[in-house]
Amino acid sequence: MIVRPRPTFLQLFFVMRGSVVPRILPQIFGFALYSAVILVLARRFQVDLSAFNITPFGLVGVTLSIYLSFRNNAAYDRWWEARKLWGALVFEIRNLARATTSLIGDRAEQRALLMEALGFCHLLRGQLRRIDSKEDARAFIGDTVDQAGARTNPADDMVRRMGRRANARREAGTLDPIGFRILDERLAAIAAIQAGCERIAGTPLPFAYTLLVHRTAYVVCLLLPIGLVSTTGWATPLFTALIAYTFFGLDALSEELEDPFGIEANDLALDGLCRVCEISVFEALGETPPKMIAADKFYYS
Amino acid sequence: MIVRPRPTFLQLFFVMRGSVVPRILPQIFGFALYSAVILVLARRFQVDLSAFNITPFGLVGVTLSIYLSFRNNAAYDRWWEARKLWGALVFEIRNLARATTSLIGDRAEQRALLMEALGFCHLLRGQLRRIDSKEDARAFIGDTVDQAGARTNPADDMVRRMGRRANARREAGTLDPIGFRILDERLAAIAAIQAGCERIAGTPLPFAYTLLVHRTAYVVCLLLPIGLVSTTGWATPLFTALIAYTFFGLDALSEELEDPFGIEANDLALDGLCRVCEISVFEALGETPPKMIAADKFYYS
Amino acid sequence: MIVRPRPTFLQLFFVMRGSVVPRILPQIFGFALYSAVILVLARRFQVDLSAFNITPFGLVGVTLSIYLSFRNNAAYDRWWEARKLWGALVFEIRNLARATTSLIGDRAEQRALLMEALGFCHLLRGQLRRIDSKEDARAFIGDTVDQAGARTNPADDMVRRMGRRANARREAGTLDPIGFRILDERLAAIAAIQAGCERIAGTPLPFAYTLLVHRTAYVVCLLLPIGLVSTTGWATPLFTALIAYTFFGLDALSEELEDPFGIEANDLALDGLCRVCEISVFEALGETPPKMIAADKFYYS
Amino acid sequence: MIVRPRPTFLQLFFVMRGSVVPRILPQIFGFALYSAVILVLARRFQVDLSAFNITPFGLVGVTLSIYLSFRNNAAYDRWWEARKLWGALVFEIRNLARATTSLIGDRAEQRALLMEALGFCHLLRGQLRRIDSKEDARAFIGDTVDQAGARTNPADDMVRRMGRRANARREAGTLDPIGFRILDERLAAIAAIQAGCERIAGTPLPFAYTLLVHRTAYVVCLLLPIGLVSTTGWATPLFTALIAYTFFGLDALSEELEDPFGIEANDLALDGLCRVCEISVFEALGETPPKMIAADKFYYS
Amino acid sequence: MIVRPRPTFLQLFFVMRGSVVPRILPQIFGFALYSAVILVLARRFQVDLSAFNITPFGLVGVTLSIYLSFRNNAAYDRWWEARKLWGALVFEIRNLARATTSLIGDRAEQRALLMEALGFCHLLRGQLRRIDSKEDARAFIGDTVDQAGARTNPADDMVRRMGRRANARREAGTLDPIGFRILDERLAAIAAIQAGCERIAGTPLPFAYTLLVHRTAYVVCLLLPIGLVSTTGWATPLFTALIAYTFFGLDALSEELEDPFGIEANDLALDGLCRVCEISVFEALGETPPKMIAADKFYYS
Repeated sequence: MIVRPRPTFLQLFFVMRGSVVPRILPQIFGFALYSAVILVLARRFQVDLSAFNITPFGLVGVTLSIYLSFRNNAAYDRWWEARKLWGALVFEIRNLARATTSLIGDRAEQRALLMEALGFCHLLRGQLRRIDSKEDARAFIGDTVDQAGARTNPADDMVRRMGRRANARREAGTLDPIGFRILDERLAAIAAIQAGCERIAGTPLPFAYTLLVHRTAYVVCLLLPIGLVSTTGWATPLFTALIAYTFFGLDALSEELEDPFGIEANDLALDGLCRVCEISVFEALGETPPKMIAADKFYYS
Repeated sequence: MIVRPRPTFLQLFFVMRGSVVPRILPQIFGFALYSAVILVLARRFQVDLSAFNITPFGLVGVTLSIYLSFRNNAAYDRWWEARKLWGALVFEIRNLARATTSLIGDRAEQRALLMEALGFCHLLRGQLRRIDSKEDARAFIGDTVDQAGARTNPADDMVRRMGRRANARREAGTLDPIGFRILDERLAAIAAIQAGCERIAGTPLPFAYTLLVHRTAYVVCLLLPIGLVSTTGWATPLFTALIAYTFFGLDALSEELEDPFGIEANDLALDGLCRVCEISVFEALGETPPKMIAADKFYYS
Repeated sequence: MIVRPRPTFLQLFFVMRGSVVPRILPQIFGFALYSAVILVLARRFQVDLSAFNITPFGLVGVTLSIYLSFRNNAAYDRWWEARKLWGALVFEIRNLARATTSLIGDRAEQRALLMEALGFCHLLRGQLRRIDSKEDARAFIGDTVDQAGARTNPADDMVRRMGRRANARREAGTLDPIGFRILDERLAAIAAIQAGCERIAGTPLPFAYTLLVHRTAYVVCLLLPIGLVSTTGWATPLFTALIAYTFFGLDALSEELEDPFGIEANDLALDGLCRVCEISVFEALGETPPKMIAADKFYYS
Repeated sequence: MIVRPRPTFLQLFFVMRGSVVPRILPQIFGFALYSAVILVLARRFQVDLSAFNITPFGLVGVTLSIYLSFRNNAAYDRWWEARKLWGALVFEIRNLARATTSLIGDRAEQRALLMEALGFCHLLRGQLRRIDSKEDARAFIGDTVDQAGARTNPADDMVRRMGRRANARREAGTLDPIGFRILDERLAAIAAIQAGCERIAGTPLPFAYTLLVHRTAYVVCLLLPIGLVSTTGWATPLFTALIAYTFFGLDALSEELEDPFGIEANDLALDGLCRVCEISVFEALGETPPKMIAADKFYYS
Repeated sequence: MIVRPRPTFLQLFFVMRGSVVPRILPQIFGFALYSAVILVLARRFQVDLSAFNITPFGLVGVTLSIYLSFRNNAAYDRWWEARKLWGALVFEIRNLARATTSLIGDRAEQRALLMEALGFCHLLRGQLRRIDSKEDARAFIGDTVDQAGARTNPADDMVRRMGRRANARREAGTLDPIGFRILDERLAAIAAIQAGCERIAGTPLPFAYTLLVHRTAYVVCLLLPIGLVSTTGWATPLFTALIAYTFFGLDALSEELEDPFGIEANDLALDGLCRVCEISVFEALGETPPKMIAADKFYYS
């Protein structure tokens, strides 16, 4: 995630970090070159391209704008829902920490349960990013991570472990039914957050949208220079490049936001969010919390 | 459901799986042919079609774009809500598994209740897809499936069975009122998910929308070549085909997403989601879970 | 509500059931005729109508499309929210049935409470559709329906009756506080559903929208032929009729969906939803449920 | 709030009640007159206004339509959310009535608490409409209204009074903890509704939107006749008036809906909603309820 | 936040407070000047700019309007969600006050817990606005503020303190489990509000949107005068300035609303909302509440 002050007018055109331009340079230059070729050929061979004027592009443009707009909104909603889920995880961990330190008398037991909660955060992050986060989790739960890692769904296993721990207290009679219910509600909320994240990570936008958007965008950009050349003459490559930039720029950004758990520049700062959870847990336990993760050139991992 | 890496530029135009193109080929080629006929007739008989110029299509295009855009959004919302409901089912099953293994001491009873939960998932899937899923459910609940299957609503019967089981424990005094309430809340949430899915499966978008969209789209595509022919000449069939592609492509996709429980390429992977539930239940019981279902050429059933 | 397979290309233009065309035929033919008159007059008297060209219609069209699009979305949202409320009623009735058969030991008392719930469904349906549904309710609650019907809000009275019944069990000591709370939550949810339905039924979209949309649509359709005649010549009536169809078609559909509890072709199938509740209740009681209501030429009442 | 049958074609142009036209007549006639002056001057002095053609208005129109559309949606959402909050108040009052008559044995105490609830409704209505509603509340709570009225937030004071009453029962041992919790949840929900209403009443849309919309609309309508005059000639005042109508009509309606608690024609019928609460409370107490408030020429106050 | 009556027609063009115009004057005048230079150069050197006509701007305008519209909606949603969260904070504080005065018998303890709640509000405000609000909090919680201020997250520390206080009562046996649960739910809701605010404050819109919008807007405004000059002649600077105003005006407003916790004219009135909480708490304690904060020239801080 990029957090930075607004660039000035001149910076604006040279900022690369967080921009989608590097990813769509092939399209921009490709279509500019292609339309330059069309322009030269049309001029040299005096081809009459007036049939390909810009009129019908209006109707196609309306439909393409529906596609692009829909896809952008859907992708952003996924990104923002993912952020909401992790924001909810932060306060559920805080609530769990407050409830645990209140309701479970035994300090070692408190600490063990909350360390499992931190282990859950790191294992979930690993599952969502499809990276190995076992070593991060090991710092909190030790070798338990190996047993959890052997399961199909390690994060789910951590929630079950916390549930068993709470149940053990209930059966030992040191946790009353209402107290057990409070802890159980927290764990249910955490399980809901996990399933929500898995839903976003595992279900991309219907593939047919990608096909519809790309095919239409490519066909429009292929036909456009032929339509423009009789009207805009030598400025055709410039306009084609500009239109390709706006189409494929929005498209590339939608694709980046569609999977919000990645490690690209506009993805969510899951490392930082895990650290926020750690700080809350350690402060609730009265221990020294770790420092927040600093940005690397405005980028938070 | 299709999950696959982004196709390259060349692949893009040849991907068929998950594309709506095969379904709308008749429209694309039909209108291309039709406009070629218009073109030839107009040229041969020197018909003056200037009255049918493209100007009034702007206003019609605006309204048609409202229809298409609305229908697409509504269909996608249904699809995504259906996915959310099944995502919620996953975590409610997980919560039920955690609560059951905690609150119900008797292991055989635990297992029986959770097997009924898996039976519920498969029976619900069968009802939504309008297929016979009894054999899948039988693997978990045995011949109970025949009694449930005799009911008007087999899945609803499974929820009632789980309720009776929980109530039997309560009456036997082995489940305290708060514990019963925790299980009852899980079952209430599962019943809510079922009713939500039935709502989506049983209530299509108002039929009048389909009529409005199709009639307008057909009339526009029928008039369009007559309007275009005096402006775009021999390129008319190309543009008509392109516009028909964008109109009917979005329309076909909306129709596919409108009923998200089907087995078409862009429908939800209910088989896989049932398997996710199975894995969580068997891991909660400490038994060996089945493997995830693999994709068949990027397609998850 | 219409549920039917997609009509074929030819059927498409002859389907009347569920279509809004019959309701807007006066507008379509009226404006076609009107523009034919304009056309003839302009030709005969050689009126110069070039001042009324189509240019300014672009700006008006943008605003009109905002109106139509907004009104359509708002009307559909009301329709879908109404459907959600009745979907929620289905699962609340199911939950109530499960909770009642668990928590209330006395079978006669169980049955009485659930029959009141079915009475509630039918009385609510009557209130929303502004029809007399007392006879449908009488089948379940007998002459109680006359006492309830004497109240200003009969459905609300049924919820209070169920509440009194639950409270009587609590005071008799046969229902523990947690059990009473579970039933009370179900009744609270049912009361919320009723208030939600009353909100939709009693609060139309602000009347000023109807005026704005209709006035603008009529003025545009009155001016349009004058603007088109110099451009589209003899095709003017055709285009005017097409544009009137798209404007008034969406408008008529919005009006139909705005009050989703009516008995028009696109309104909700409240009869069928009441029957779904009946089936769930009778199956929960272990009695033979009634059959689902069949469609009458694709129409569910 | 206006509830009336759809006006006929002829009525449509003469309905004034509920219409925004009276409020924007100055703008409509002002701009018509202004463009007539432009027209006369341009004709008389043969000014060449072709530089001011309509082309650039397309781009400005797109942005203006974003503003108008956004503002309309935001204003309607506020109006509908306000309606939802009052709908929620209706069922919370009903739930409170049902819970109170069940859980509080003493009839005088039941009545006192429910009268305070009705006092709350009327005091809240007064605060939202910025009118003095003490006399309406006095009918239910007598002179308590003077003590409450002396507080900064009288409605909030009523909720606290109900809370104290419930707590007194709890401390007296005639209300068990679960019963207290049920009443407390109702009061918490009522407090949430109040805060929601205060939020809408106290936080207008950001003022900068009003400035952006009005400034752009005025500048467009000032430049438009100059742009139209060379194209539409003597029809310019007509089109200018039509466009001013569509711009300022939507704008005036948005402004009216933005503050949904007022007493303008399209505002919410708070008097009627308070009466609905009264009816439910008196029927729950078994007393004769008052009559619904009748409409005054389709207008509900 | 600005709350003021609607400005009159003449005031409209001179209101500066709350307007975004001062912030975008450089863009407006810069592009006007730039297009004047283009105009003069084109006239003097007789450059043929007809290739740069306005046709292709239509397609770019569609995409730019998608960007602007999306960004505006997303920014407003953040602003309104932030307002909802603070509205929820108001009623959670009220509920906490009602519950505390009911459930906690000891008056000194009541007061101490509610003062910590007010301290929480002020510390949260300070964290969100990135200002030092310790002195405001000190008025309520004394030197506790220094201990809390030493934590990484002072507001979170206040919630934990309230939790410990409630737990101490529970362990002392003066608060029953249900009462503890009621207080715990209030604290959980307050923690959720804090995490929601932190989410909005800490996660800006993806940076790539800012780049896409600004780059496209600048490129369009740079090319626009070249495209307009052959059509609109000497009126070009006027139209360029108008279009720059509409583009950058919406852009600047979106940027202001994107961070709703700032102290700019359109940001939320957090000082006033903290005061509303104070009034409710002091009235609940039966003490004299402070006065509401008055507006400073229509501006609420």
